[in-house]
Amino acid sequence: MRLLSFSEGGKEGWGAVSGEDIVDLSRALPNYPTLADFIASSDFARRDAIVAAQRPGPKLSDVSFLPVIPRPEKIVCAVRNYLDHHNESLASGIQREITGYPPIFLRVWRSQVGHNQPIVRPKVSLDLDWEGELAVIIGKSGRHISRADAWSHIAGYSIFNDVSVRDWQRHAQQIASGKNFVGTGPFGPWLVTPDEIGDPSKLKIETRVNGAVMQSANTSLLIFPIPHLIEYCSTIFDLVPGDVIVTGTPAGVGAARKPPVFLKPGDLVDVQIENIGTLSNPVAQETDG
Amino acid sequence: MRLLSFSEGGKEGWGAVSGEDIVDLSRALPNYPTLADFIASSDFARRDAIVAAQRPGPKLSDVSFLPVIPRPEKIVCAVRNYLDHHNESLASGIQREITGYPPIFLRVWRSQVGHNQPIVRPKVSLDLDWEGELAVIIGKSGRHISRADAWSHIAGYSIFNDVSVRDWQRHAQQIASGKNFVGTGPFGPWLVTPDEIGDPSKLKIETRVNGAVMQSANTSLLIFPIPHLIEYCSTIFDLVPGDVIVTGTPAGVGAARKPPVFLKPGDLVDVQIENIGTLSNPVAQETDG
Repeated sequence: MRLLSFSEGGKEGWGAVSGEDIVDLSRALPNYPTLADFIASSDFARRDAIVAAQRPGPKLSDVSFLPVIPRPEKIVCAVRNYLDHHNESLASGIQREITGYPPIFLRVWRSQVGHNQPIVRPKVSLDLDWEGELAVIIGKSGRHISRADAWSHIAGYSIFNDVSVRDWQRHAQQIASGKNFVGTGPFGPWLVTPDEIGDPSKLKIETRVNGAVMQSANTSLLIFPIPHLIEYCSTIFDLVPGDVIVTGTPAGVGAARKPPVFLKPGDLVDVQIENIGTLSNPVAQETDG
Repeated sequence: MRLLSFSEGGKEGWGAVSGEDIVDLSRALPNYPTLADFIASSDFARRDAIVAAQRPGPKLSDVSFLPVIPRPEKIVCAVRNYLDHHNESLASGIQREITGYPPIFLRVWRSQVGHNQPIVRPKVSLDLDWEGELAVIIGKSGRHISRADAWSHIAGYSIFNDVSVRDWQRHAQQIASGKNFVGTGPFGPWLVTPDEIGDPSKLKIETRVNGAVMQSANTSLLIFPIPHLIEYCSTIFDLVPGDVIVTGTPAGVGAARKPPVFLKPGDLVDVQIENIGTLSNPVAQETDG
């Protein structure tokens, strides 16, 4: 099942995708104001029967996509989690080493944007870069989750474009500053539940800018696979339903190219992941308004 | 005025401190479920008249302190923002440089604990360290806030102990991992409004472990003063009421001592800041329960 959050006439809703339509579950299940509330509930396991009992509507084409989880409590992002991206970072002069632990940083939910919504190039920088990534959405709370148990804590999978403001990221060696600008966190278009994803460790992932392939890899190449990331994060944090773990980006970012290539207003960025779909976002310039 | 969040009989409340009592404003103003809702409201400016019209109760001694803002949307922490601490970090072999920009990282609200509540030493580490810091609580939303306007966005000041799990902080050069463990973010005991803080750029700050002074400094020594931090953060983030900016710690952390000194179960950590008060927390061991 594909589940999404959307806005229709200024009102936030969530539901399931059915062909060209949405089954509006926020109307059918008003006790769950958000998709995160639903995936935290026991009704999540009954989702097929619930959706089958509803009439479809509105049409996908009549709503605005919101970030899959509009206000996650935590968005934990893995850094340099593909060897080829780690190596291109080294070649760009970034001195880092692979340790036995995944480097992580946090992103705030207000940096997110939905599918088809603009990525915003901030006034203070020209160094706006893409990072296509597989996102994991937590469905069951937990701390000290073992790798063996990790899969049972996952509600589904989606796509995150961890758009980065490279010069700000490098201001002072802690990268959160360049990873949290308003309008730099495309997340969507929807969540795909585990029963429909196939093997999440073997998904093709591709990022295109104006149609040109910039990143092409497979989630089989993660240095720290999904269960390892969940184990590590849950050693630190209480994970809760709706938390998002963004698993890292493969080689091919703009900053590592010779010469570097950055996003500019009017560009279109697509991140496609097998069995999920394509997250598309145009780039717009921040204005003084 | 001193404002706090508390728990009484398992119910969350917030109010003003009046001598040995609390004026329970969460009962008087039920439209504001949290202290963050109140400081975001126009009634915040009328706080003196509102409090004067209420009868005091419960007693401070009859409640549990919660983190001043129990669930801030963002907790942005400055790193190495006192020169003496920067220098002791260099002496410990950490290779960093001061740039024109404050290094920042994010902390999740679930890592917070209230005044008098235990700091939790996690099972996975013995390297638990203190960091006494001045906290700034945002009262008015804004983006691109100039240094000149920054003061008008502040609802008040408090104390944060940015307790750090040093070995995890150093896993992979991004420090969020060691700064977010459950039970490592003491925040309290209360917020002091700007009219009662004096000059927030000239406050004595002291951290004591079992009564022994470990850190002793003055907020006049911040490398990036409060208005600069607010300007920088608001270039990246939309700041909103209840957001917390933690301004960095002075020299004297345990990891920089020869030999290093770390917190252990049974220790008591006090962070005292002039015109605010003292944030006290015992240290407890994480259990398997």
